Amino acid sequence: MIDRAVAGRVQPDTTDLGPGDDAAVVRAADGRVVVSSDMLVQGRHFRFDWSTPEQVGRKAAAQNAADIASMGAWPTAFLVSLGCPPDTPIRVADALSEGIWAEASALGAGVVGGDTVQSDQVVLSLTVLGDLRGRDAVLRAGARPGDQVAVTGRLGWSAAGLALLVADNRDFPELVDAHRVPTPPYRRGPDAAEAGATAMTDNSDGLVADLGHLCAASGVRVDLDPAALTPDPPLRAAAQTLGVDPSAWVLTGGEDHSLLATFPRGAALPDGWRRIGVVRAGAGVTVGGRAWSGSGGWQSFG
Amino acid sequence: MIDRAVAGRVQPDTTDLGPGDDAAVVRAADGRVVVSSDMLVQGRHFRFDWSTPEQVGRKAAAQNAADIASMGAWPTAFLVSLGCPPDTPIRVADALSEGIWAEASALGAGVVGGDTVQSDQVVLSLTVLGDLRGRDAVLRAGARPGDQVAVTGRLGWSAAGLALLVADNRDFPELVDAHRVPTPPYRRGPDAAEAGATAMTDNSDGLVADLGHLCAASGVRVDLDPAALTPDPPLRAAAQTLGVDPSAWVLTGGEDHSLLATFPRGAALPDGWRRIGVVRAGAGVTVGGRAWSGSGGWQSFG
Repeated sequence: MIDRAVAGRVQPDTTDLGPGDDAAVVRAADGRVVVSSDMLVQGRHFRFDWSTPEQVGRKAAAQNAADIASMGAWPTAFLVSLGCPPDTPIRVADALSEGIWAEASALGAGVVGGDTVQSDQVVLSLTVLGDLRGRDAVLRAGARPGDQVAVTGRLGWSAAGLALLVADNRDFPELVDAHRVPTPPYRRGPDAAEAGATAMTDNSDGLVADLGHLCAASGVRVDLDPAALTPDPPLRAAAQTLGVDPSAWVLTGGEDHSLLATFPRGAALPDGWRRIGVVRAGAGVTVGGRAWSGSGGWQSFG
Repeated sequence: MIDRAVAGRVQPDTTDLGPGDDAAVVRAADGRVVVSSDMLVQGRHFRFDWSTPEQVGRKAAAQNAADIASMGAWPTAFLVSLGCPPDTPIRVADALSEGIWAEASALGAGVVGGDTVQSDQVVLSLTVLGDLRGRDAVLRAGARPGDQVAVTGRLGWSAAGLALLVADNRDFPELVDAHRVPTPPYRRGPDAAEAGATAMTDNSDGLVADLGHLCAASGVRVDLDPAALTPDPPLRAAAQTLGVDPSAWVLTGGEDHSLLATFPRGAALPDGWRRIGVVRAGAGVTVGGRAWSGSGGWQSFG
C-alpha cells in the first residue's frame, strides 16, 4: 500500500530524502520547521457516502496545511498515517493517497513518509511541515486593542454544504463541494505575515470559536461588524430553501479554513483580505458590541 | 485533554514554540529535519491488560524515536495525535501522555503538538522530528560487499516477552518488561554515523526482515554468523520453560528497536556495537550461508 502511494511521485526540491527509509529528510532552510498534526476518523470527520476518498484526502491535507498558512508559513512536506480495516478496497487507499498528493502538489509540497496499519475504522493522521522563510511565526497571541480584524476566504460555505448533505438536498453543488474540499487561501497567510499581521489563526471550528481562541491567547476582545458578515448569496439561497438563518453558518460554521488575522490600525490590508471587525480591550467575541448567543462553533470532541 | 497533556511541561531549547497555537516551531539547526511517523492501534499494537497506558506511551515514543536514531540523528520533538472512545478514563489519556513525555524528556526532546479526536478504538499516531547535526543521514541503501554487519541492543527480548504474555507466564519479568517498553540504544545511532556506518536501520520487524529491507535497498546479501547470535541467557531459560526454540526470537522477533548497521571491512566498531555477520554480493539474508527457513518477521498489516 505504501509502495503504491509513493510510486512515480515527484518530490519537490525541499525533500532531501523521501519515503522508503526509516525516516525522511526535509529541508528547513531558515533553521526552523513549522509543524502541525491532524487526525480524522471515518464517521466523525468524513463519510464515504458524502465524499469520495479522493475528496477526503484533499480535505485532510487542506485542513492540515491551513495550520501552516495561518502561522505565515509555506507547507513543504506531509507525513500520512492510515489505519483501515483489512477489507478496505485498495482503490480507497489509492484514492485517499491521490487526494493528499493532489493537494500537496498544488502547494509545492511532498508526501515524505507515514505508516499503514490495520484498524476497525478508517483513521487518517497527517503531519505537515512548513517553512517560515526567515520571518517570525504569526501567533494567536499578538492582537492589540485598536487592531483591525480581517478574514480571507469563505465563511459558512462548508457548514451550509454539510447542512445540505444532511438534508439530502443537491441543489447547491458549490456549497456541498466547499464542504467536501475546502480551499484555504494558503498564500494569503504569508502575505499577511509580510504585511505585519499581529495575530492569525485559521477558521476550523467556526468564526466565533476561532476568534475566541485568538482573543484568549491575546487577552483582548474582538468586536465583529455585522454589516461585514452578510452571508454570501448562495448561503442566503440555501438557507431559504432549508428554512434556517444563514448568519449561524457565517458565525459558527467551521471547516472553511479561511484565515483570520489582526492588523495594526490604519495598515493597508493585503490583497484578498477584508475587514470584519476591530480588537477591543476585554475578553471574548462580540457581534456589533453584543455577545453572540448562538453556539460557539464545532467541537471535534463533544 | 490537550491542556492536561502540556500543562507544566518543560520544553527543550529546540522548541521555539510549543503546543497551543495552530502549529509548533522547532529548531532545525543544520537546515534539515529528519521526520518519521508511526501509528499504533489498541488490540493490534498494544493491550491495556498487558501494558499500562504509561508503558504504551513510552513504547510508542521509543519506537518512533528509534527511526530517528537509525538515520544517525537525534530526536528533537514529538507530535502526538490520540483517538479514543468518549468513555476513555481521563487517567488513561494522562498516563499515555506521561509515558510519551517520559521517553521524550529522557531524549532531550519535547512534545510540541498533536490532536485529540473521538474514535471507536484507541489509536495513537506519533510523529518525531530529529536533527542530523550536520552529518549525512545513514540510509538503508549503502551496504557494500565486504562490510561488517553489526548490532547494538537486544535481539529477541521483546518477542520472548510477548510469548510469555500470551502464555500467561510471569517468571521472566525482565523479558516481559522488554516487550512492554523497549530500550533502543538511541545514542549509538549517531555514534555509528560518526564511525562511518555505510547503512543502518532499526530492528522493528525482526532481524531477518529488517536486514532483508537493508539488503533490498543496498542490492546485497547479508550472511549472519550463527555463533554471534546465541540467544541471551534469559531467552534460553524462557524458551526452555515454554518448550520453543529461542533462535526464532533472535532471528525474527521484532520490536526490540535495536540498531542494525553495516561498517566498512576492518573498521573498528563503535562502543556497544557487536559484529553478527558480513555483507556479500547477492540478495536476501542467509544464516551461516544458508537461507533462513522460518518466517521473515512481524508484519503490521497481515
